[in-house]
Amino acid sequence: MNIQASATPATHTLGELAKFIGAELKGDATCVIESLATLAAAESGQLSFLANKSYRKYLKECRASALILHPDMAAEFSGNALLVDNPYLAYAKLSALFDQSPKSAAGIHPSATVAEDAIVHADASVGPQVVIESGARVEAGAVIGAGSFIGAGSIIGERTVLKSNVSIYHGCFVGSDCLFHSQAVIGSDGFGFAPNTENDDFTWTKIHQLGGVVIGDRVELGACTAIDRGALDDTVLADGVIIDNQVQIAHNVRIGENTAIASSCAIAGSTTIGSGCTFSGMVGVVGHLTITDNVHVTAMTLVTKSIDKPGSYSAGTPVEETAKWRKNAVRFGQLNALVNRVRSLEKHSTDSSKK
Amino acid sequence: MNIQASATPATHTLGELAKFIGAELKGDATCVIESLATLAAAESGQLSFLANKSYRKYLKECRASALILHPDMAAEFSGNALLVDNPYLAYAKLSALFDQSPKSAAGIHPSATVAEDAIVHADASVGPQVVIESGARVEAGAVIGAGSFIGAGSIIGERTVLKSNVSIYHGCFVGSDCLFHSQAVIGSDGFGFAPNTENDDFTWTKIHQLGGVVIGDRVELGACTAIDRGALDDTVLADGVIIDNQVQIAHNVRIGENTAIASSCAIAGSTTIGSGCTFSGMVGVVGHLTITDNVHVTAMTLVTKSIDKPGSYSAGTPVEETAKWRKNAVRFGQLNALVNRVRSLEKHSTDSSKK
Amino acid sequence: MNIQASATPATHTLGELAKFIGAELKGDATCVIESLATLAAAESGQLSFLANKSYRKYLKECRASALILHPDMAAEFSGNALLVDNPYLAYAKLSALFDQSPKSAAGIHPSATVAEDAIVHADASVGPQVVIESGARVEAGAVIGAGSFIGAGSIIGERTVLKSNVSIYHGCFVGSDCLFHSQAVIGSDGFGFAPNTENDDFTWTKIHQLGGVVIGDRVELGACTAIDRGALDDTVLADGVIIDNQVQIAHNVRIGENTAIASSCAIAGSTTIGSGCTFSGMVGVVGHLTITDNVHVTAMTLVTKSIDKPGSYSAGTPVEETAKWRKNAVRFGQLNALVNRVRSLEKHSTDSSKK
Repeated sequence: MNIQASATPATHTLGELAKFIGAELKGDATCVIESLATLAAAESGQLSFLANKSYRKYLKECRASALILHPDMAAEFSGNALLVDNPYLAYAKLSALFDQSPKSAAGIHPSATVAEDAIVHADASVGPQVVIESGARVEAGAVIGAGSFIGAGSIIGERTVLKSNVSIYHGCFVGSDCLFHSQAVIGSDGFGFAPNTENDDFTWTKIHQLGGVVIGDRVELGACTAIDRGALDDTVLADGVIIDNQVQIAHNVRIGENTAIASSCAIAGSTTIGSGCTFSGMVGVVGHLTITDNVHVTAMTLVTKSIDKPGSYSAGTPVEETAKWRKNAVRFGQLNALVNRVRSLEKHSTDSSKK
Repeated sequence: MNIQASATPATHTLGELAKFIGAELKGDATCVIESLATLAAAESGQLSFLANKSYRKYLKECRASALILHPDMAAEFSGNALLVDNPYLAYAKLSALFDQSPKSAAGIHPSATVAEDAIVHADASVGPQVVIESGARVEAGAVIGAGSFIGAGSIIGERTVLKSNVSIYHGCFVGSDCLFHSQAVIGSDGFGFAPNTENDDFTWTKIHQLGGVVIGDRVELGACTAIDRGALDDTVLADGVIIDNQVQIAHNVRIGENTAIASSCAIAGSTTIGSGCTFSGMVGVVGHLTITDNVHVTAMTLVTKSIDKPGSYSAGTPVEETAKWRKNAVRFGQLNALVNRVRSLEKHSTDSSKK
Repeated sequence: MNIQASATPATHTLGELAKFIGAELKGDATCVIESLATLAAAESGQLSFLANKSYRKYLKECRASALILHPDMAAEFSGNALLVDNPYLAYAKLSALFDQSPKSAAGIHPSATVAEDAIVHADASVGPQVVIESGARVEAGAVIGAGSFIGAGSIIGERTVLKSNVSIYHGCFVGSDCLFHSQAVIGSDGFGFAPNTENDDFTWTKIHQLGGVVIGDRVELGACTAIDRGALDDTVLADGVIIDNQVQIAHNVRIGENTAIASSCAIAGSTTIGSGCTFSGMVGVVGHLTITDNVHVTAMTLVTKSIDKPGSYSAGTPVEETAKWRKNAVRFGQLNALVNRVRSLEKHSTDSSKK
C-alpha cells in the first residue's frame, strides 16, 4: 500500500529520462513512465534498474516498462532500456524527478512565531508553529518544517530543508542545500563538566558550552540525530557529510567532506574524522582521536585509537547460538591464562626436543 | 513520591476485579482496591501480585489488601487473593483499569493547524499546536498529542494515540489502537545515497525515498524511535509489533507480527524479521538479511547473517574488571596466531607419539 | 566561525576574574578579558587555561592575554596568569561568566497554551508554542523552551530550564536547577508487556505504566534522551545526575547522586545504579541489576551482572584492520574447542613426562 499525497503523479517519457541521465536509449522513446519500482515489484508504467548482477535472474520475468541497465546487460532484457555505465547512480538521479513529496509554499505561516529582528527571505517557507528567535536568518528557498525551532542568531542557508520538530539552538550556522530530518537537534550543550571536590563531597561543575556548530553545504542529518555545540571552538561538519538517524556527534568533533555515518553511531568529543570515511551502524569513536581520510568502520565497532591508515576496521565477536556462544565467551575471560598454558606447553615441547 | 494528575482515583472491589480477569476469589469480595503496587511497597487498599516465585519470601510480610496468585501459592498468603494461572498476565490486564493518565477530549484544539482538506473524525482529539497537512485523515477515537505533526495524506487509524511532539511524515499509514510515544518519527528518509565519482571528486547523490511506511494495528513505538520510509516499496510493521525507545528501523525493513524490539536497537535497510521475535536492548541487525520467526537475540549482539532457525542468539564478551579484561582483549588480537601455535604443538605431539 | 547571538559580549578584568575563582593574580589586574579560548586558538583579549600538562608545549607561543595555571606552571608563561590548584575547575566556573546564550524573559508567550488550572510562577518564562496541561506547576525562574510540553500535574522546579521541544508527560516531578536539552522525553511508558497465549495465538498485553518519574536537583539531560515512567513505583534520578544525549533510562531505574552517563547508553528496567558512577558512551546495563557506588564502565560494555565492588569494568574486543580481525573473530567461535585441544596436549605432555 503506497499512499500518495499528490493526486497527479509526474510522468516522463523514456526519451526525456534518457536525456536527463545521459543514457543510451534502447526501445521506445515515447513510452511513458509514471514511477520507479524495484525489479520484483515493477509493473507496466514503471521504470526499474539492475545495479547488482545477483538480481539478473529477475530480468526475464520483469514487467517494468523499462529498465536502467549497464550496456553489458542490454541483451538480457527484451524490453525498453536506458543504458548507462552506473545504473545505481542513474536511478539515484532519476529518483529526484519522481519525488512526489509535498512542496511547501513560500511565506511565513500565521501560526509561526518569528522575532521582529529575524530575517526570513521572501522565498523561504516557514511552517506552522515554527519559532524563530531574535537575529536568526533564513535564506532564500529554505523550508522550516512545522514545529521547528531556530535559536537566536542562527543562520539557515539557501534551500536548506528542516522537517518537522527540528531544534536548532542559538549561534549555529547551517549551509545551503542541507536536509535535516525530524527531531534532529543542532547546538545542544556538549557533555562537559569538571569534577569538583572542593566542599569535600563530589559534584560536577558545568562547563558552559560557548562554541557553536558550523555545518557546510549539502549535509543530511537523520531523525533524532544530535550535534552538540563546541565547548570553546565550534563543532564542524564539512560539505557533503551525510548522517543517518539516532547519531550523536559530541562537542568539538570535526567531520571531513562526504563522510557517511550510519544510524546509531556516537562520536565522542574533540575527535577529528577525515573525508570520505564510512561508518556502519552503531559504531562508537572515543574522544580526542584523529581518524584519517577513507577509513571504513564496520558495524558495532568501538574505535579506541587514532587511525592514520585508510582501510577497513572492525571489532567484536560473531553471532552464534547462545548456548554455543556462552561456552566461548567464558573462555574469553580465560584467554590470557590460555596463552600462558600454551607457552608452557611450547617450552616443555622444546625441552623435550632437546633431550 | 507519586504525583497523580487526577484527584479521584478509580476504585474497584475485589469482586469486580475477580470478574474482570476471570479469577477465583479467595476472601472478601467487597474489599475496595484503590491502586496496584509491588509486593514490597503495597499497603492497605492496594492490590499486588506474585509472578516470580523468587519473590515468595515477601508474601509473609506483605501488607497489600489482596494479591494475585497462582493457585499453588494460595496457601502461602493469609489475606485476600485472586487466583489465576497467570498472575503476571492478570496484573497486566488490571493495570488498564487503574490507569489514571489524563484522557483527551474529542475535538480540535483552537491552536492546532489543520489543513482544510484534512479529515478529522468528530470523535478524534487533536491537541494544542498540532499540525495536520493536506489530505491527512485522523480516524475515530484517535488522539494526536500536543505539538505533533501529521504530513500530507497520512492516515491515523481508530483509537491510535500519538503523544506529544510526534512527527509523522507524508504518505504514511498507521493502523488502529497504536500508541506512539513522544518524539517518535515515522516516515523520515531512508539513508540511501549513490556514490558519485563522475566529476573526479567523490560525492554522494541522494536517492529520494519514494516509498512510505505501513504500520499495522496495536503497534507501540517508544520515545525517540524512528521508522524510515521505504526507498521504493514501503517499510512495514505488522500488527502487534512493540518497539521500545531510541530504536532505528531503516528503509524497507519488514517486521512480523508481535515481534518485540527493546531500546536502542538498530535494524538496517531491507532486512526482514519474522513474527514472535524478541530483540533485547542495543541489538544491531545488518541490512538485507532474513530473520525467521521466533528468533531471540540477547543484548548488544550484532546479527551479521540471516537466521533460518528459531532460537536464541548472542555475541560479545563478558564484562570484567578493566585490568583483567585488557589482558584478555589483547589476546583476542593474537587468537589466530594462538591457534596456529596449538596446531604446531599438536603436530609435534603426534610426531613424538609416532616415534 | 563563531556566531554570537548577542552583540555586546560581557567583559571582565583579570582582577574581577581572580576574585571570582579565588585565584592568585600574576600580572595586570586591569587587563580586560572578552572571552575564553583554547590554548591553541587564543588571541589577545582572551583567557585560556592549561589543565593537562601534555599541552604545556603550547605555552611559549600562546597569544592569550592571560592563562589559568597551576602555580607549578607559573614560571613557564611570561604573560598574565590566574594561579589556582585546579585550573580545569576554575575554567568551568568562569565559563558561566562568559556564557552569552540568550536569556528568556519572564512571562508566558501569547502563543503558548496553558491550562487554566496550571500554575506558572510570575518569574518563570514560558516560550512560544509551549503546552502546559491541567494542574501542572512551573516554579520561579524556570524556563520552558519553545514547543515544549508539560503534562497534567507535572512539576518543574525553580530555575530549571527546558530547551525547545522537550516532552514531559503527566505526573512527573522535576527538581530545581535542572537543564534538559531539546527533544528529551520524561515519563514515556516503560516497555512492559505480558506474553498472552490465551487465545492460542501469541500476543502482548500491555502493562499500563502507573508510576511516575522523580528527578532531583541539578540534573542535566542531553538531547533526545528518554526517561521512562515507572510501572508501579517511580523511576528516580537523584540530585546531580548528569546524562548525555541519546540515552535510554528504562522504567523503575534508580540512579544515585552525581552519577554521569555519557551518550547513547541504555539502562534496562529496574536496575539500580549507585552514586558517583561514570558510564562511557554506548554502555548497556541489563535489567534488575544493582551497581554499587563509584563504578566506572568503559565504552560499549554490556553489564550483565550486578557489581558490588567499586572500580573500572570493561568488555569487548580491540579494533583491528578488518582482514586481521576476521581471522581472530572466527577463532572466537572455536575458543571452547581450542581450550579442549590445549587440555588434551597438557594431558599428553604430563603423560609423556611420567614415562
